[in-house]
Amino acid sequence: MPARISGKRPVQLKEEIAAFKRRRILEEASYLFFTEGYETTTLDAVADRLNVSKPFIYSYYKNKGELLYEICQTGIRLSLSVLEQSLAVEGSATDKLKAVVERVARIIIENQRYISIYLREEKSLEPEDARAIRVMRHHFDELLGDLLEKGCKAGEFGIQDPSRAAIWVSGLLTWIALWYHEGGSWSETEVVMDALTMVMKMVAPGRPFRG
Amino acid sequence: MPARISGKRPVQLKEEIAAFKRRRILEEASYLFFTEGYETTTLDAVADRLNVSKPFIYSYYKNKGELLYEICQTGIRLSLSVLEQSLAVEGSATDKLKAVVERVARIIIENQRYISIYLREEKSLEPEDARAIRVMRHHFDELLGDLLEKGCKAGEFGIQDPSRAAIWVSGLLTWIALWYHEGGSWSETEVVMDALTMVMKMVAPGRPFRG
Repeated sequence: MPARISGKRPVQLKEEIAAFKRRRILEEASYLFFTEGYETTTLDAVADRLNVSKPFIYSYYKNKGELLYEICQTGIRLSLSVLEQSLAVEGSATDKLKAVVERVARIIIENQRYISIYLREEKSLEPEDARAIRVMRHHFDELLGDLLEKGCKAGEFGIQDPSRAAIWVSGLLTWIALWYHEGGSWSETEVVMDALTMVMKMVAPGRPFRG
Repeated sequence: MPARISGKRPVQLKEEIAAFKRRRILEEASYLFFTEGYETTTLDAVADRLNVSKPFIYSYYKNKGELLYEICQTGIRLSLSVLEQSLAVEGSATDKLKAVVERVARIIIENQRYISIYLREEKSLEPEDARAIRVMRHHFDELLGDLLEKGCKAGEFGIQDPSRAAIWVSGLLTWIALWYHEGGSWSETEVVMDALTMVMKMVAPGRPFRG
């Protein structure tokens, strides 16, 4: 097998093509799930959009449910991964939180359609798939809660209950998927900067509200 | 027609009963839309749950789409109404904002199922119904933005762009419908108080985030 010009690892063209095909199937399926709804979309319609046969789809995804799971887990899988990376680097809790909010907000905007489908179609997932995603979401909130708690102990943040605050922060971020409008009046960068401002204010030290 | 004991207005029992029937139909339809999805729910199934005939349903709602619209517009109609009431009373911008957040958070919790159905099934609404609801939501955000702007001018709040901040505040509130869990680890009052704390921190004067 020939080596890449830039390195020693052999080119895995076959794998790259398979990954590309899987991604394209997912994109077209998500277009139909988003515009027509999951229930009414058939695998024939997905195959038609790609001008391929249904058996072609079946050689990459075992059924429509696997496509839905793949779509629904994308946003949280990527978000969890950047959260774990951000926690692993050196820096203050503030630095880490800023990195997480900025990167997760971008993931949510880039995967907006997938996340909207998840929020709409969670009930259509197989129970074990829905559970697997909820476990990831819960893990995200827990890790974020730990970060907020560290920031509180370091005097950087002022929150009464960090694990609860984490749920508000991740809710604020996920909400972006439901209203962001590409080509609308806010640019992606404006949304990301606004999200940062809002989250940093939410966790800032300050007197808690007392009626 | 007999008068109420407590007042001069005649008892409108017939109207009250009609309103009660409409409400019960809506509740059972929302149960089915929420658990089974809108597409797969039939009016026969709604009639079965109430042990009535389908023509009985038709004498109150002209079709399934009207039921969906009625469900979907409930949350925003009630929220808009408390926002307008709160703006009309005397008080500082802070007082008004606190009243709005507290009352809207309670409306969202009480109408959680209806709001979740709206967020899931917006695409199933008739285009003019979907538009009518978006107009109400937009009006809510505009009025809230005006209130935030007044608070900024009075030195009570510190926000760079009040109309954008309004969208984050109403997003944070609407998000409650997607995660609040009756009988879960947070009481309704805890959620409402947390929402108040978060929103008041979001609008508090303070240096905006600058990277």
